[in-house]
Amino acid sequence: MSHFPSERILMGPGPSNVSPRVLEALSRPLVGHLDPEFLAIMNEIQDLLRQVFRTSNPLTIPISGTGSAGMEASVVNFVEPGDSVLVAQHGVFGQRLAEEMRRCRAECTVVSVPFGEPLDPEQIQVMAEKCRPRLIAVVHAETSTGVLQPIEPIREICDRFDSLLLVDAVTSLGGHPVLVDEWKIDICYSGTQKCLSCPPGLAPFTASPRAIEYLNSRQTKCQSWYLDLTLVQNYWGENRTYHHTAPVSMNYALREALGIIVEEGLEMRWARHERNHQALVAGVSAMGLEMKVSPEFRLWSLNTVVIPEGVNDLQTRQELLSKYHLEIGGGLGDLAGKVWRVGLMGETSKAQNVLYFLHALEKCLTSQGFRCSAGSGVSAASDVLAE
Amino acid sequence: MSHFPSERILMGPGPSNVSPRVLEALSRPLVGHLDPEFLAIMNEIQDLLRQVFRTSNPLTIPISGTGSAGMEASVVNFVEPGDSVLVAQHGVFGQRLAEEMRRCRAECTVVSVPFGEPLDPEQIQVMAEKCRPRLIAVVHAETSTGVLQPIEPIREICDRFDSLLLVDAVTSLGGHPVLVDEWKIDICYSGTQKCLSCPPGLAPFTASPRAIEYLNSRQTKCQSWYLDLTLVQNYWGENRTYHHTAPVSMNYALREALGIIVEEGLEMRWARHERNHQALVAGVSAMGLEMKVSPEFRLWSLNTVVIPEGVNDLQTRQELLSKYHLEIGGGLGDLAGKVWRVGLMGETSKAQNVLYFLHALEKCLTSQGFRCSAGSGVSAASDVLAE
Repeated sequence: MSHFPSERILMGPGPSNVSPRVLEALSRPLVGHLDPEFLAIMNEIQDLLRQVFRTSNPLTIPISGTGSAGMEASVVNFVEPGDSVLVAQHGVFGQRLAEEMRRCRAECTVVSVPFGEPLDPEQIQVMAEKCRPRLIAVVHAETSTGVLQPIEPIREICDRFDSLLLVDAVTSLGGHPVLVDEWKIDICYSGTQKCLSCPPGLAPFTASPRAIEYLNSRQTKCQSWYLDLTLVQNYWGENRTYHHTAPVSMNYALREALGIIVEEGLEMRWARHERNHQALVAGVSAMGLEMKVSPEFRLWSLNTVVIPEGVNDLQTRQELLSKYHLEIGGGLGDLAGKVWRVGLMGETSKAQNVLYFLHALEKCLTSQGFRCSAGSGVSAASDVLAE
Repeated sequence: MSHFPSERILMGPGPSNVSPRVLEALSRPLVGHLDPEFLAIMNEIQDLLRQVFRTSNPLTIPISGTGSAGMEASVVNFVEPGDSVLVAQHGVFGQRLAEEMRRCRAECTVVSVPFGEPLDPEQIQVMAEKCRPRLIAVVHAETSTGVLQPIEPIREICDRFDSLLLVDAVTSLGGHPVLVDEWKIDICYSGTQKCLSCPPGLAPFTASPRAIEYLNSRQTKCQSWYLDLTLVQNYWGENRTYHHTAPVSMNYALREALGIIVEEGLEMRWARHERNHQALVAGVSAMGLEMKVSPEFRLWSLNTVVIPEGVNDLQTRQELLSKYHLEIGGGLGDLAGKVWRVGLMGETSKAQNVLYFLHALEKCLTSQGFRCSAGSGVSAASDVLAE
């Protein structure tokens, strides 16, 4: 019953490794969800989230569910039946956004590109002219493809059509710049288990005053009661009106994880993610492997490496896990069986993990007949890390 | 940043106190949500939940949200727009069920009674004849009133109209008998932070094969993607298809909390909840206070005590918290300012907590001019505990 889980190096698409400080915070005794001490913690969390989202939005809170609940809250609160919305889709999570829009009975137009490519703002502009969207939704960091989609050109299109901008920052927040106020993002959500290095279970969320204005003047009730922000905001706001029981322990953990981020400094943290990503890319390239995404659109937090011919996807991942205690992710959607997804998120984004992964990958690949010069990956990565 | 929360005796409507074993489980290092070790834990949790729900339902899982997410999952998956449903309502959580039904665009008929009274099956029967409900929903343990609603008479009505039976067992599961198979409950949900004594954040859920048959033959898609059980069941079932990232740490905690319950034995646990409840009732009665609910319908896990005249509600609760580290709940909805809600759930249901609460309450009340003979509450409770 009480057996201890194995130690893993979590280099998949999340969860990432969690600091012992965060695990310790999780294990503290509980207070009630309306206890003055918990209310103070809620305030701290909101302040810290504002720093990490780079925003002054009053409504900046963790939604009580995983990143997908953050996505659902972002859609059901800001979309009404019949609304024209545009989803700029470049992977599985963009597809999911479109599915959420349809379940809200929105008129959903989709612009899409093949998995692994970024969206072309020109194409979005053309479709926006046709459908005149009240809201444009896009995934910043596509966890399924490894593409980082620039947000500012899409904001310009939103400005032309007076559209709200909804951004999925699940795999970028805390690892890449996510500048909510500067980029004029209206609705933004993330997950705790990626670059924030907190266990999964909460979805950081923020909404601009303009989005809140829309929310408070909706014609219809939100179809979700659990995620209805007109109610949730009264619990996180000054009134502290009971809505649902907040996940107390998970909020302890989030506070600690955000505290660690602020101590490190966001810029330092972004630079660390970039450096370790560059080392990983240098390593796999030196081994003769290819990255799926072209350099200027690569995520630092999630690296998609093309599986070379003759190499068995599942066998490699299983060997990495069982022999090296190293988890990486398989491909998702159109990229299933074609790429590996190698996460370098939060606590996991460390030089030693990059080097150890390259070492382990070389062993697994050469045992399957793949040829590369011994130590080439580790050596190339080490050079980048030494710069 | 890292200050430790105060120790509290959590005698409110939840969260209840959590065993150090569960806190320790929370703090274990994370594995991935598709790791073979985690899949094994998922199987264990399902087995344990079946034991606690007294069911053999294959779909018996924790929903990734708090008890309210369990309620929402139970409604959005099993109700379609235009469906005739009947909500038998005897408190705030029944009202919430009706609200969830309306947000699903169901034709919702409500039978209600004043807060603090149980429902009359006759009345439900009369309304069922009129509206011919496809589903009847009822709260087993009304956390807002302290009423335990007998389920079997309502099942008989369901049988007459071939209706599905949906039961909210948030405040009863693990503290009172909840016999899903014997009572032929089709859809049942709970929360982790009540009589299961696990932190809030998951919602134990089970559905009968008949409910699943309905689910799989729905005419419309579930309006929630996050809670869509046609998708969620593929992650918890044999396929292990990725849906959303499971809250790994919370599932560690739930496994441990359920293990503790099975070690104690459900019957022993129910008996413990009953005994401590009887002691509490004897104590407050000896002090001259009144219980809100008549004896045969009283919850063991949540005791509603009428606030005596001349006593200040908020002042009393604040004094209990600040001087005695004891949290109790205020009234909710129609009972706000009229009752206190005193929880004796899971780990909190202990003789020492009953005695200490009565001692502390006497001090708080007499300081406000309330008159009762010194030590009468503690003495009466002690007699019951000695039986």
